[in-house]
Amino acid sequence: MTSARWRHWRRKVHEILELGGDVHPAGYIVNGFIIVLIVANALAFAAQTVEELATRYDAWFRAFNVFSVMVFTIEYALRVWSSVEIPVLSRMPPWRARAIFASRPIMIIDLLAFAPGILTWLFPADLRFLRLLRVLRLFRLARFSPALQTLFRVCKEESGALLGSLLLMLILLLFASTGIYFLERHAQPEAFGSIPAASWWALATLTTVGYGDVVPVTPLGKMLGGVVMLLGVGMFALPVAIIATGFSQESVRHQFVATWSMVARVPLFADMSRAELADITKVLDTRSYDPGVPIVRAGDVGENMYILASGEARLLLGKGRSVILKEGDIFGEMALLEHRRHERDVIATTYCRLYVLDNRALARLSRRHPGLLDRIRLAATAQDENEEAQT
Amino acid sequence: MTSARWRHWRRKVHEILELGGDVHPAGYIVNGFIIVLIVANALAFAAQTVEELATRYDAWFRAFNVFSVMVFTIEYALRVWSSVEIPVLSRMPPWRARAIFASRPIMIIDLLAFAPGILTWLFPADLRFLRLLRVLRLFRLARFSPALQTLFRVCKEESGALLGSLLLMLILLLFASTGIYFLERHAQPEAFGSIPAASWWALATLTTVGYGDVVPVTPLGKMLGGVVMLLGVGMFALPVAIIATGFSQESVRHQFVATWSMVARVPLFADMSRAELADITKVLDTRSYDPGVPIVRAGDVGENMYILASGEARLLLGKGRSVILKEGDIFGEMALLEHRRHERDVIATTYCRLYVLDNRALARLSRRHPGLLDRIRLAATAQDENEEAQT
Amino acid sequence: MTSARWRHWRRKVHEILELGGDVHPAGYIVNGFIIVLIVANALAFAAQTVEELATRYDAWFRAFNVFSVMVFTIEYALRVWSSVEIPVLSRMPPWRARAIFASRPIMIIDLLAFAPGILTWLFPADLRFLRLLRVLRLFRLARFSPALQTLFRVCKEESGALLGSLLLMLILLLFASTGIYFLERHAQPEAFGSIPAASWWALATLTTVGYGDVVPVTPLGKMLGGVVMLLGVGMFALPVAIIATGFSQESVRHQFVATWSMVARVPLFADMSRAELADITKVLDTRSYDPGVPIVRAGDVGENMYILASGEARLLLGKGRSVILKEGDIFGEMALLEHRRHERDVIATTYCRLYVLDNRALARLSRRHPGLLDRIRLAATAQDENEEAQT
Amino acid sequence: MTSARWRHWRRKVHEILELGGDVHPAGYIVNGFIIVLIVANALAFAAQTVEELATRYDAWFRAFNVFSVMVFTIEYALRVWSSVEIPVLSRMPPWRARAIFASRPIMIIDLLAFAPGILTWLFPADLRFLRLLRVLRLFRLARFSPALQTLFRVCKEESGALLGSLLLMLILLLFASTGIYFLERHAQPEAFGSIPAASWWALATLTTVGYGDVVPVTPLGKMLGGVVMLLGVGMFALPVAIIATGFSQESVRHQFVATWSMVARVPLFADMSRAELADITKVLDTRSYDPGVPIVRAGDVGENMYILASGEARLLLGKGRSVILKEGDIFGEMALLEHRRHERDVIATTYCRLYVLDNRALARLSRRHPGLLDRIRLAATAQDENEEAQT
Repeated sequence: MTSARWRHWRRKVHEILELGGDVHPAGYIVNGFIIVLIVANALAFAAQTVEELATRYDAWFRAFNVFSVMVFTIEYALRVWSSVEIPVLSRMPPWRARAIFASRPIMIIDLLAFAPGILTWLFPADLRFLRLLRVLRLFRLARFSPALQTLFRVCKEESGALLGSLLLMLILLLFASTGIYFLERHAQPEAFGSIPAASWWALATLTTVGYGDVVPVTPLGKMLGGVVMLLGVGMFALPVAIIATGFSQESVRHQFVATWSMVARVPLFADMSRAELADITKVLDTRSYDPGVPIVRAGDVGENMYILASGEARLLLGKGRSVILKEGDIFGEMALLEHRRHERDVIATTYCRLYVLDNRALARLSRRHPGLLDRIRLAATAQDENEEAQT
Repeated sequence: MTSARWRHWRRKVHEILELGGDVHPAGYIVNGFIIVLIVANALAFAAQTVEELATRYDAWFRAFNVFSVMVFTIEYALRVWSSVEIPVLSRMPPWRARAIFASRPIMIIDLLAFAPGILTWLFPADLRFLRLLRVLRLFRLARFSPALQTLFRVCKEESGALLGSLLLMLILLLFASTGIYFLERHAQPEAFGSIPAASWWALATLTTVGYGDVVPVTPLGKMLGGVVMLLGVGMFALPVAIIATGFSQESVRHQFVATWSMVARVPLFADMSRAELADITKVLDTRSYDPGVPIVRAGDVGENMYILASGEARLLLGKGRSVILKEGDIFGEMALLEHRRHERDVIATTYCRLYVLDNRALARLSRRHPGLLDRIRLAATAQDENEEAQT
Repeated sequence: MTSARWRHWRRKVHEILELGGDVHPAGYIVNGFIIVLIVANALAFAAQTVEELATRYDAWFRAFNVFSVMVFTIEYALRVWSSVEIPVLSRMPPWRARAIFASRPIMIIDLLAFAPGILTWLFPADLRFLRLLRVLRLFRLARFSPALQTLFRVCKEESGALLGSLLLMLILLLFASTGIYFLERHAQPEAFGSIPAASWWALATLTTVGYGDVVPVTPLGKMLGGVVMLLGVGMFALPVAIIATGFSQESVRHQFVATWSMVARVPLFADMSRAELADITKVLDTRSYDPGVPIVRAGDVGENMYILASGEARLLLGKGRSVILKEGDIFGEMALLEHRRHERDVIATTYCRLYVLDNRALARLSRRHPGLLDRIRLAATAQDENEEAQT
Repeated sequence: MTSARWRHWRRKVHEILELGGDVHPAGYIVNGFIIVLIVANALAFAAQTVEELATRYDAWFRAFNVFSVMVFTIEYALRVWSSVEIPVLSRMPPWRARAIFASRPIMIIDLLAFAPGILTWLFPADLRFLRLLRVLRLFRLARFSPALQTLFRVCKEESGALLGSLLLMLILLLFASTGIYFLERHAQPEAFGSIPAASWWALATLTTVGYGDVVPVTPLGKMLGGVVMLLGVGMFALPVAIIATGFSQESVRHQFVATWSMVARVPLFADMSRAELADITKVLDTRSYDPGVPIVRAGDVGENMYILASGEARLLLGKGRSVILKEGDIFGEMALLEHRRHERDVIATTYCRLYVLDNRALARLSRRHPGLLDRIRLAATAQDENEEAQT
């Protein structure tokens, strides 16, 4: 097989495994299969502890485990092999790209999902505790849920406040345990005979779990119990408030980042720095057009430059000819730069979302980034030539 | 009965059933009756499982069921028949309008509420499981609670994050079950003898339900129990935070949509596209006036155009004559367009809410939608003629 | 006693009872005494049901009840008598003012707190159920907690959404009860023998109370139990999200209303309508100054008009003379109206909060409210004369 | 030892104990050691109540307690001694500075952590109850968690609303107890024989703890139980909503205060009042630059003044010479003040955050604070001289 064939396959594998179903239809099937396999592993792990099932279907469980480890191993190997296709890593020497890729946290979780299985085969000595690591396979699901990753990020960013409320919970726990120990130790020496023993009741009450296996019986103990219950309701409020605040901030930030990364993909802004892109993102306006609605009309004064964020539009050249504009194309820029009227109509052909840069915002940007106007002119000329070739 | 009579009654039925008490007073009675009937059905369904009641009042239960199915069937038929009165569907051929209407989710729920009842009469074979579908009748209540529909929408939009937190809950559940299984299986082989068995305790603890039918007894098991309780408090925070964020965003969006649909009803903007309406909605300002307060004074410079959103105003023509302006009427537009002073006073006669479009916003809009100014002139002329006829 | 004496005492009583400790120091004592009396009533009511205490301290309980009823009656009578001092009611004939005042919800609660007590003395027949109304006395506490009133308002405004989530809870309850009834009725005919019986378990699980007196025992029942627990966690999220959203909106609205009512108290705006005041409130800017900092300097161009919201400032007249400006005073208005420079310094003497109206906002306001400028000129002249008299 | 030596050591001790690891590396070790000691104290306090451990390791517990008290005493003494290094206190006589410092709430908590221990040694009489105060040592942890202090602040600011919801909880509690007392007292005279007894069940249900040691058994009692459970879910929502609203406001306020205190540290604004600083903070814009990106380019029109908030930039003087700009330095101010073009490039050398004041904002500020422009000119000259010295 030639090197070009290899590269073609490596590209395909990368698209299917890393980019998923949006880019390559087979991605849906492969990812779906792996998700099902992970869930089945968790179920099998749990089922194996039911003696009846374990003895009856022992062979099946073993076979399924071997099969899973093999699939995970192959998947891992393919991911590492094809990782050189990732844009950020593509300019490094392959071995370095793969080493960097393999040291990502998500790849280490993947490794832990099958490595212990292989180890137990290689060293059949009593490594039974390694089997417990099989439960880690469930963590692999995190890879497939972007929302879960957002939740992790929020929890991480608010970790200071969350630890603070955990600390407060522990302080309250010690007070509740100490109090109930002094009030109930004579009445119920078994359940409240020491502070550690009393903390079992205190924690179950503070978290409103309330098993009821141990409850205070003296009047004073019951009064303290009531106070602890009320404190428990208050304690519930803290993590909720912290995470809700973090979540709503995250959701604002997310929208900014989404626009930002859309802007970063526009060829015109391709070689701008992180700070410049953030500046541009802040001044962009968003507008949407229904199919058939004119976006730019010939004869209007050129006041805006447009970047097509999604959808398709048609630039009418006259005489029935037209050019199709796609995601990332810019238009309206010549009339804006030369302060003249638009020469050609642009009509939305599908539902379009556009980023709009008006002349004031452009003037401000170009003062801060002097090369920007030249780059827009260049991009416009390049696109024009494309368009002429296309017609 | 003539076709006109039919149409009159169809219109009435439509108003009563779909538009409710705000439009036709009988709507309150009919809707109230149906709500009571739905609740009574749920109660009857539950009561029928009490053996004593079931044997004693069997005939009553049967009769009530027959009655309910008949009412629901008639109501359903009337809704489908009168659906051609819905503005969006009114231009289609009747059979298509009704087919489209009947395929709405809310109509399918309505169908499921009585169809199984009819089926069991037609095919008296043992279709007892169909009786279970009777519990679906309660879902019909969703039709009458707009807030519930909002809740559903929020849950649907945040479904990604909610699924993510459910996934996290399941991961924690597996870890908690595995942990307690290893720590307690020797002490309590019955309750913690396998991971599936242990997960009953783990879930009751993670959700802070805490039945207390099974509790860990070993010191290590109790320590793990404490950790699981604390995780449970944390897990509670996630759905709350997700739904709270979604809910507050929904409430902002709702206000925009409410204004949007009010604007869409103004005849002037009637034939605008969705995108154009959104543009206009963004630049409109809202103002309210108490009864008797002048909105426009003759002699003032015309800087704004006004659209009456709610309430009534009076345009003074001089010599004691005046014209009443109603919801949707526009005024102030001529002075604005011709850059001259207002010629006549306009005074609020009831509490009025107005949408205001100032000259800068209008200039910007008209540049993007060149036909807008002409349409405003046309609408103004048409309204003027109306007003003259009215005086 | 002369009529003037009467009025003097009526005014005092009104200040003490209605305006509280901020206005008259005795208000703290009287209000504190009533709060203690209410709480003591609730405790006595509860204690009377303990047989031991009831028999032993019967006389004391009776005496305390008589005393409470008398105090509440006197307090109620004084409130009604002095209600004519309330500004809104002061222009009506006294009997009408008192009737309107007595029909306020908060006064009806007050009435219910003692009226049944008096009734039982007048008609000593068996009105024991009236005694139960004594528990309503606790509601009187709401009068003394503004935060509780805010909570009630939020709950009332979000009542639609809260009812929607209650409805959803009931729908889930019916499904959970029906499901567990079919799965567990053979295993535990006593606890799950009918849907109403099963709903006791279902509700305790959905609300995460989890008594544990009844738990499913079959594997399928336990699985349904797990789903119901998870739904319970989700159901918790709804009221929290609804009230949190309502609460944060209420807190924004509250700030607007606070500014609004401050503006309404400025004599200049005294005779403006609700709509006009809202307009003005929207364009006001807030600024604060430390003691000793100049607010206006002689020689600066007059660009703003200032209204003193809180604190005190000093207008320097030269030659060591100065005028003290207080809450509600306006200054800077002449320089603004006549487009000239300020003639005198104004210096903050305490920490000051000011509402600032700049010339653009004033121009816009005065166009909409043509009489405003004249009124400002008038107010300025009146104030000047005052100041001259003061120096 | 000379006085200078003393001062040197006092400064060091202050840096290590009060400013922590960010300022002096030893701060990490010392603070870490104290945190571990506090936690170990809490554990020892709890462990001592386990009889077995108490008898066996009695000597160890005593020794550890003596050791802890000594460490806390020394730490407290050092804190008080070195407190004169705190900027706010440094201008007072030492004894007053230390008295003020020692009366801070956080220092009183520190004192309570060891003082009772010393008292029991001095007066070996039966002061066993003082031992209980040992549990207060855990509060010392609050000093090391800024998040916990934020939580306290939020709870304090929302204390009105939190007390209101506690009051509502108590009102509901009384109603629930009264109701269940009348419905269940005959069926279960032991658990529901009086209202105080019944309130144990009512509180456990309202807080969703649900021990299950006492449950209603009559149908009406169960129905009331269901209502109380639903009210419990509603009651949960209140503190969560209150704290969530407070928390998100606190987080906005925190960002403002963070910028504010950064601005306050800029030498240019050093002698401004609180009110002036707040004014300036409101008009500042924030921008960030990646390393290597030019911030100001020679030849551009001077439109902004920049304050370096964090990071480092380089001012190019030509001929390869350059000056390094650090946190707090200002630049671009001369071109702005004299309305001319920038003469020199400024390039970010690290990731920089800048506060930007544009000419309109500066004009508005300088009108309100006439001395500002002169001060900027002065600061610029001083900085220039520094820079020339530096090259």
